[in-house]
Amino acid sequence: MSKHFITTGDYTKFQLQSIIDKAIVYKTGQEISNCSGKILTLIFANPSLRTRLSFESGMKKMGGQVNVLSATDAWEFEYKKGVVMDGKTQEYIKEAAQVISSYTDLIALRKSDLMTKKSRTQQTQQTWEELKNDQPIHELAKYSNKPVINMESNMFHPCQSMADVMTMQEHFGSLEGKKIVLTWAPHPKALPLATPHSQLLTPAIFGADVTLVCPPGFELEESVMNLAKGKAGKFSITDNQMSAFRGADVVIAKSWASLKYFGDWEAESDYRKIFLNWMVNQKKMNLTNNAIFMHCLPIRRNVVASDEVLDSEQSVVIQEAENRMWVQMAIIDFLLNSKS
Amino acid sequence: MSKHFITTGDYTKFQLQSIIDKAIVYKTGQEISNCSGKILTLIFANPSLRTRLSFESGMKKMGGQVNVLSATDAWEFEYKKGVVMDGKTQEYIKEAAQVISSYTDLIALRKSDLMTKKSRTQQTQQTWEELKNDQPIHELAKYSNKPVINMESNMFHPCQSMADVMTMQEHFGSLEGKKIVLTWAPHPKALPLATPHSQLLTPAIFGADVTLVCPPGFELEESVMNLAKGKAGKFSITDNQMSAFRGADVVIAKSWASLKYFGDWEAESDYRKIFLNWMVNQKKMNLTNNAIFMHCLPIRRNVVASDEVLDSEQSVVIQEAENRMWVQMAIIDFLLNSKS
Amino acid sequence: MSKHFITTGDYTKFQLQSIIDKAIVYKTGQEISNCSGKILTLIFANPSLRTRLSFESGMKKMGGQVNVLSATDAWEFEYKKGVVMDGKTQEYIKEAAQVISSYTDLIALRKSDLMTKKSRTQQTQQTWEELKNDQPIHELAKYSNKPVINMESNMFHPCQSMADVMTMQEHFGSLEGKKIVLTWAPHPKALPLATPHSQLLTPAIFGADVTLVCPPGFELEESVMNLAKGKAGKFSITDNQMSAFRGADVVIAKSWASLKYFGDWEAESDYRKIFLNWMVNQKKMNLTNNAIFMHCLPIRRNVVASDEVLDSEQSVVIQEAENRMWVQMAIIDFLLNSKS
Repeated sequence: MSKHFITTGDYTKFQLQSIIDKAIVYKTGQEISNCSGKILTLIFANPSLRTRLSFESGMKKMGGQVNVLSATDAWEFEYKKGVVMDGKTQEYIKEAAQVISSYTDLIALRKSDLMTKKSRTQQTQQTWEELKNDQPIHELAKYSNKPVINMESNMFHPCQSMADVMTMQEHFGSLEGKKIVLTWAPHPKALPLATPHSQLLTPAIFGADVTLVCPPGFELEESVMNLAKGKAGKFSITDNQMSAFRGADVVIAKSWASLKYFGDWEAESDYRKIFLNWMVNQKKMNLTNNAIFMHCLPIRRNVVASDEVLDSEQSVVIQEAENRMWVQMAIIDFLLNSKS
Repeated sequence: MSKHFITTGDYTKFQLQSIIDKAIVYKTGQEISNCSGKILTLIFANPSLRTRLSFESGMKKMGGQVNVLSATDAWEFEYKKGVVMDGKTQEYIKEAAQVISSYTDLIALRKSDLMTKKSRTQQTQQTWEELKNDQPIHELAKYSNKPVINMESNMFHPCQSMADVMTMQEHFGSLEGKKIVLTWAPHPKALPLATPHSQLLTPAIFGADVTLVCPPGFELEESVMNLAKGKAGKFSITDNQMSAFRGADVVIAKSWASLKYFGDWEAESDYRKIFLNWMVNQKKMNLTNNAIFMHCLPIRRNVVASDEVLDSEQSVVIQEAENRMWVQMAIIDFLLNSKS
Repeated sequence: MSKHFITTGDYTKFQLQSIIDKAIVYKTGQEISNCSGKILTLIFANPSLRTRLSFESGMKKMGGQVNVLSATDAWEFEYKKGVVMDGKTQEYIKEAAQVISSYTDLIALRKSDLMTKKSRTQQTQQTWEELKNDQPIHELAKYSNKPVINMESNMFHPCQSMADVMTMQEHFGSLEGKKIVLTWAPHPKALPLATPHSQLLTPAIFGADVTLVCPPGFELEESVMNLAKGKAGKFSITDNQMSAFRGADVVIAKSWASLKYFGDWEAESDYRKIFLNWMVNQKKMNLTNNAIFMHCLPIRRNVVASDEVLDSEQSVVIQEAENRMWVQMAIIDFLLNSKS
C-alpha cells in the first residue's frame, strides 16, 4: 500500500521531524535527493500560486518532472459510489485515480469546496458535515497505486503547516515551551478552514504551547481542536486577542469562515464584519515576546495585518513561503524513498 | 516531407504492428527510445485528461520535453484560405504551423468540433459535410515542417484505437479470427464520432472480425464503415445488441451522436433517449465468449455500462488507458526515428 | 542588484549587439549556453502563443526548466502601495515578487492593460497617463531578487524588437544607412502600443534610419518617439504611406490604437475605420528598395497585409518569429551569466 500525505496527524513527531531535517539539508545546499525519472502530477481544482510554483520548482530541483492539470483542463470528477452518472460529473474518481497513477509516480490534489455560493456544477450546496469527510482526497488515495499528497482539502493543508514549523525551528530550534498563537483575522471573504486546522495541529504535534484566539463563533472544527489539545504542551482557546498575544513567541494570522453560520453566507458576512478590529497591527505585536509574524500568503494588507507588521523585521512570511518548496521536496522524498 | 499520424488508415498493418511491438518493449521495461533534446508541443482546443497526461508523461519518460497550449492560452485559428480576417479568428494556420514547428520537433493537436450548440466564436454552426473534412489537422500537417499527431479530430482518434489493439493483443496475440464488437451505448450528451471511427477501423486493419452494433440512425460515417469493411476479416452491422454480443471476444462500448439528426440537436437528444436500455450490463456480457470489456474513458457509470461490468475481471479499461502512454511513445519514436 | 530586461533603451548598442551575436551562434548550432538547474517562471496576464512557446522551447533547449502561470491559475495582484486590500486584488506584488524569486532563477511577465472596455476586476478604466508608468513590471523588478524579463508591458515589448533586429541583420548585416519603415496598418481592434514602441526604438538604437508612418492621431507616445529620434541615424514621422515606402529596406507593419481617442473607444473605432486602405499590399511594396516585410504575428490577413505580400519571397515573418526563440535564449544567458 502506498503512503499518502493527507494530514500531519497521520504521522508521528519523529517522522515529521525527519522530513523537516531533510528539508533543511536541501535548503542549506548540502545535498538534494535525486528524483530523476520520476513524474509528479499536480491537480488543481482551485487557483494556486505558491503551491503550484513551489511544487513545480521543487520537483524540478530534484531532477524530476511535473505535469500540471487545472480543473478547466479536464472535467468534474464523481466521488460517490453507485451513482447513475447522467448529470454533470463525467468521470468516477476510481478510474481517474488508477489511470493517473499508471502515468505518474506521485499525485498531488488541491480540492477545497467551502461553498459560499452554489457552483456552476452543483445543484445543491454541500453541508459542512459532508465537506469535512474530505471524500475527494480520500477516494483518490484509496484508488491510487501511487502516493497522494494533499495540497489543500476542506480539512487540512499539511504542507503549509510543515513549512510553518520548519520556519519556527529555523528561529527557535525545538518548539517545546514556545508559545504559538494562531489568531483569527478579518477578511472580505469567508475563507476555508484547512489552513488554520493544520496550522493549529502541526505545532501541537511538535509539542509547542498552542493558543487559538478567535471571536466567538469562529472556533475551528471540534475534532481538530481536540486532537491538537491532546498533543500540545499547553493548549488554550480564548476570544481575548490582547491577552493571547502577551508573551507569544510566534503569531500566526489567518482568516476563516464561521462554522456557526455555515451555509447562511449573508449572515456569516454580516457577523464577520463586526470583527474588523482584529487586524494584527504593531501595537498588538508589541505585546508579544518579540514574536515572529507568520501568514500563509496571499495576504490582504491592511485588512489581515498592517503594512507596518508585514514590512517589519518580525515578519517571516517570505521565508515561510520559500520553505514550502524545501519541505515539499522532503515530503516527496519521504513518500518515494523512505521505508516505514 | 514529414510523416504525420492523422489516421491509422494511412498506414499498413505491418507499420502499425511495428509501433505496437515497440510499445510492448517499452512497457515491459526492456528499453525506451531516447528523445533527449526533442520538444513536443501539445495543443488542446478541447479538454483532456488521459491524452494530455499520457503524452506528457510518455515524452518525459523518453527524456524529451513537452509544451502544453490550451485553447484559452492563445486564440482561435483561421483555417480558410483567402479570408479577410476582420472577424473573430486571429491567426491563420499557415503562420501558426510554421512558427510552432520552428520551436518544436513534434506537434500534436486535439480539435474536435461536433457542435451541439453555437460556440462563442462561431456565427453559424458547421455542417457535418464541412466538419468531416478535418481541415484543422490537415492544414496544420500541410504547413508544419515537423511531424503532426492527431490527438482527436472530428473524424479520427488514432492513438486511442492503437491503445485498444495493443490491449487486445496483450490478451489474445493476433486479432485474426477474433470477434470484436463495437457497441453504441447511451449517454446524456451527443458525443463526437472520432473515437468510434478509429475503434472500428483499426481492429479491421489488423484483420479482426468486426461487428458494429447500434440503433437505427446511429450508423457511423459511411466512408469509414466502407474502409473498415474492406480491411476486416468479417464485417457486419446490426441493430440487435443481444445477437451481436454472442460469441464476442471483445466488447468496446462507446456512445456517439446520430448523424441522421446532425444539427437538430433537440431532436437528436429526444431520439437518443429512446435507447437508454442499450447500457452494457453483466447479463449482456454473459452472452459473450468471456469477452474483455473496453471503453476509452471517461465513462458515465450506470449509463454507458453498469458498475458490475466496470468492476468485473473482464473490464480492461485501466490497462487500455495505461497503454495510451506506451503506444503514443512508440508513435513518437516512429515519427522521429524510423525510416520509410 | 539583479539586471532586468524591461526595455532595450536600458542598454547600449554594444550590449544589445552582444546578445544578437550570441543568438546567431545558438541558431547556427555552434554552441548553446547551459542553463541546467535553472528555472524560469513565465507569468501571463494576457494570452500568448509565440512568446510562450518560444520561451518554453528556448529555455528547454538550454537544459533549463520552465514554470508557466496564467492569470486564471492564480489571481489579481495589487500594485499600489498602502492600499487597504478589501476589494478584488488578492496579493500585493511585493510578496509575490519575493516569493516567486525564491522558487526560481528568472521571472518573465506579460501584462498589457490597454483597456477597450472595463475588465471584470476593475471598477474604473485606467488612463494612459497611469498605464504608461508600467507599474506592474517595474514593481515586480523592484521586489524580485532575480532577473525580470518583460514579455510585453503597456509600453514595451523588447524581445520582439530584438528578434526584428536580428532578422534584419541576417539580411543586411549592419543597420547603419538602412531605411526601416514602421507603418501603421488597419485592424478590427484597438491594439496596444508596446510592440510598435519597441519596434521603433530598437532599430534606432542600432543606428538605422527610421521612418514612422501613420495616419494623423496615431503618433506613438512622445517620449518614445523622442528617444528613438535621439538615437537613429535619420528619423522622420509622416502620414504619407506611399512616400514613406519609397526606398525602404525594411517594412514593419503593425496596427495600434490612437492615443488621441484613448478611453473613448467607440470614437477611436470609428476614426480607425477611415484608414482601412492603409493595408500593406504588393503595389505598395513595389515602391520599396525590394524591402523585406516584417510583422510580429499573429497577423490578420487581408486586413493588415494582403495574402500576396505575406506569401511573397519578401516576407520574413516566419524567420522573425523563429528568431524570438534564439534571441530570448541569448537574453536569458545575458541576464544569468554575463557581468556588467
